[in-house]
Amino acid sequence: MVNQEQRESAFLWILDRLQENQVAVPIIAKDFSAEDWAFVFEGLPKEHRLKLWQTLNQDKKSSVLAAMRDDSRVQLMSLLSAQNIEDVALTSNTSELLEILEVLPSHVTKGLIKKLNPEELGLVEEALTYSDDQLGRYVNHEVFTVCKGVNTADLLDELKANDLPSYTDSILVVDESGHYLGQIDINQLFSCNEQIDVIQIAEFSDQILAADQNLIEAAEAMKSCGRSMLPVINKQGRLVGRLSIKDAIDVYQEYYESQLSHMGRVSDEDLFAPVFTSSRRRAVWLGINLITALAASMVIGIFDEVLVQVVALAVLMPIVASMGGITGSQTLTLTIRGIATGQLAKSNLRALGNKEVLVAFFNGLLWAGVVSFVTSVWFDSTSLSFIIAFAIIINMVVAAFAGIAIPVFLDKLGVDPAIAGSVILTTVTDVVGFFVFLGSASLLLL
Amino acid sequence: MVNQEQRESAFLWILDRLQENQVAVPIIAKDFSAEDWAFVFEGLPKEHRLKLWQTLNQDKKSSVLAAMRDDSRVQLMSLLSAQNIEDVALTSNTSELLEILEVLPSHVTKGLIKKLNPEELGLVEEALTYSDDQLGRYVNHEVFTVCKGVNTADLLDELKANDLPSYTDSILVVDESGHYLGQIDINQLFSCNEQIDVIQIAEFSDQILAADQNLIEAAEAMKSCGRSMLPVINKQGRLVGRLSIKDAIDVYQEYYESQLSHMGRVSDEDLFAPVFTSSRRRAVWLGINLITALAASMVIGIFDEVLVQVVALAVLMPIVASMGGITGSQTLTLTIRGIATGQLAKSNLRALGNKEVLVAFFNGLLWAGVVSFVTSVWFDSTSLSFIIAFAIIINMVVAAFAGIAIPVFLDKLGVDPAIAGSVILTTVTDVVGFFVFLGSASLLLL
Repeated sequence: MVNQEQRESAFLWILDRLQENQVAVPIIAKDFSAEDWAFVFEGLPKEHRLKLWQTLNQDKKSSVLAAMRDDSRVQLMSLLSAQNIEDVALTSNTSELLEILEVLPSHVTKGLIKKLNPEELGLVEEALTYSDDQLGRYVNHEVFTVCKGVNTADLLDELKANDLPSYTDSILVVDESGHYLGQIDINQLFSCNEQIDVIQIAEFSDQILAADQNLIEAAEAMKSCGRSMLPVINKQGRLVGRLSIKDAIDVYQEYYESQLSHMGRVSDEDLFAPVFTSSRRRAVWLGINLITALAASMVIGIFDEVLVQVVALAVLMPIVASMGGITGSQTLTLTIRGIATGQLAKSNLRALGNKEVLVAFFNGLLWAGVVSFVTSVWFDSTSLSFIIAFAIIINMVVAAFAGIAIPVFLDKLGVDPAIAGSVILTTVTDVVGFFVFLGSASLLLL
Repeated sequence: MVNQEQRESAFLWILDRLQENQVAVPIIAKDFSAEDWAFVFEGLPKEHRLKLWQTLNQDKKSSVLAAMRDDSRVQLMSLLSAQNIEDVALTSNTSELLEILEVLPSHVTKGLIKKLNPEELGLVEEALTYSDDQLGRYVNHEVFTVCKGVNTADLLDELKANDLPSYTDSILVVDESGHYLGQIDINQLFSCNEQIDVIQIAEFSDQILAADQNLIEAAEAMKSCGRSMLPVINKQGRLVGRLSIKDAIDVYQEYYESQLSHMGRVSDEDLFAPVFTSSRRRAVWLGINLITALAASMVIGIFDEVLVQVVALAVLMPIVASMGGITGSQTLTLTIRGIATGQLAKSNLRALGNKEVLVAFFNGLLWAGVVSFVTSVWFDSTSLSFIIAFAIIINMVVAAFAGIAIPVFLDKLGVDPAIAGSVILTTVTDVVGFFVFLGSASLLLL
């Protein structure tokens, strides 16, 4: 194990050598975990990745690939020959193999699957029957089980002879055909002196996870159960594997990172993704944004007459739109969080709405006052400073209302508000802002 | 333990009763953990919180308070009398007490501290010597220790008689004055038949955490160490407590949630925070945003002459600014992530810059083409469609460059780029967008 500082300085050292066209790793890299190596590869510009990859120990490669971000893994694998990928895949364990298979073109996958041993093939096939947000897809197969009928003395002998997998605080008891029967707490074994059938000291706990359960929900259950692992059972009652608390951390991290990326409107992208892949992906957001911007432009276009006569309106109009945008996004963030946690429901939506609209109104008064003062000094026009103050207050109150209504509505439609919410909100605040500002100017100034 | 679904439906049930002015909890609430109760309280409009609080068992109160978000905890505690708070504080364990003390006014804190028993007082005082991003402040005191000199047979007897705290995979060995000497893996005890001093089977591991270590780094170490807990040692070598893997999950969750809130520019706020508290907090962002918007307005103001003559410029100018804004925020998100993980350094910054600018250029070409077509159809002007295409491409390329330069620069100044980055970026893309668009229009159309 190396700490974060050691890892970062080793990364910088490797990077600097590669920039000088040398491929070398510092001594400390011998203690690198798969995560540490994944960190290094993700941080290398893509032309250096293959060079370093070739120096990596063959038996480390599969775990490093599995530990990388999806996007970086795809990029690295696209540089490897089919033979290279196969060599890596055949030395990997089931969960690593699944991560690798997920990003392979299907003809390579088919060839690979033929070469698996029957036991591994069975595990892979079972995992692939679950979708990628179900627990069954990511189940951990490193699990210590004991069969009903075994004697406690024999179990203790086996424990003495073998190391337990990490995060094991209980031993799972199954029948001959692999059905889950119960579990024995490790602690319990200290007070077990008689020689009896393990099934007699096993407890059937209702703290079990279903293989078809949602992954995030399983992690949530893991977090609050007070245990280091939970058994995962399929529909037939067979033990599929377990979820360890370390697996739960990984699930959380991936979940939060994807949330963070959504908000920044950039997918969970490789730092050094190929230019065209990256352009294509981002073009989508830019296109959606363009539709928003065009809508705003059309609203402005309606009022071209008043704009010709009062050029100050063109100068000031972005202020109205942007104050509304910020107000709306503040409310939106809170609402999206409330929906995600389940703490927002029909019965408390009105209370949130009242609060948010009031907050927006008070802030509207404050900042409309400031802007109105600036306007009257800058353009020496009382009517203009009155119009902009009015437009800011209206736009901010509407923004707060929209910041609640939009995500609630999207959620009802089954669309993730974290993805689409802010674009729709911007459209609303731009359109309303320009419309109220230029519209009231037309009425009062023309 | 209840699952997420049960928790949410119990929450809705309680909420609906409260709306009808009844205070009641469903039967399932008897299985609620502190986190479940915290979830319920956070979701209640503030006028209902006190009513429900009064029905809660006295011995649950401290753990529920500790499990709540900071902001919600402050809000709830502001409704309680000093005597009520004291009653809760005196039944709480050290880490709960610290969470409560953190948000109390200092005169109440002083009164409270006087009433603590000496052992608890010592723990609290030690914890308070660390800052709120240091591990020592949040150390977990539920730890199973054994003193050097104890016989393994006695240790086994003690294990038989006592339940181990959750997430315990090793027993920590200390000397008479509490210095950390080593640890015994639980698994190891199965093969221990002789009666010897525990110190003879203890191993001194270098997998230990320092109490003055950064909290996030400690959680990171916890995640990659393969163990359920790590001992925490102070500068004098004394065992302060431990960090369990469950504690590490809590650290991660809090970290990511605060990151998410920063991006949405709303603090980690109580859903039902008081209107004035909330208004004051958000006013800051609105004010900063106003400065940005005013800067953009001033740039537009420079070109009032051309705006009067070509009103189409006023109609189209938000498009230029907003395409730049989106492009910049895509690059910004990636750069902030790279800085946060430590994967961006001097030596690979240029590679990222080249890629991002190229991506922006290609997308610029694409969308400038689209906008230019729309413009020529809408306003029937070749020169205008040429000008807007030019301005969009320039602004998008500058935005990509700024999306890297701004966070790198902020990070060098020691400012968190996740907080200030996007506001500065918007200023740049607005100012550059308006300047290039209206400036080149002045040159070509006047």
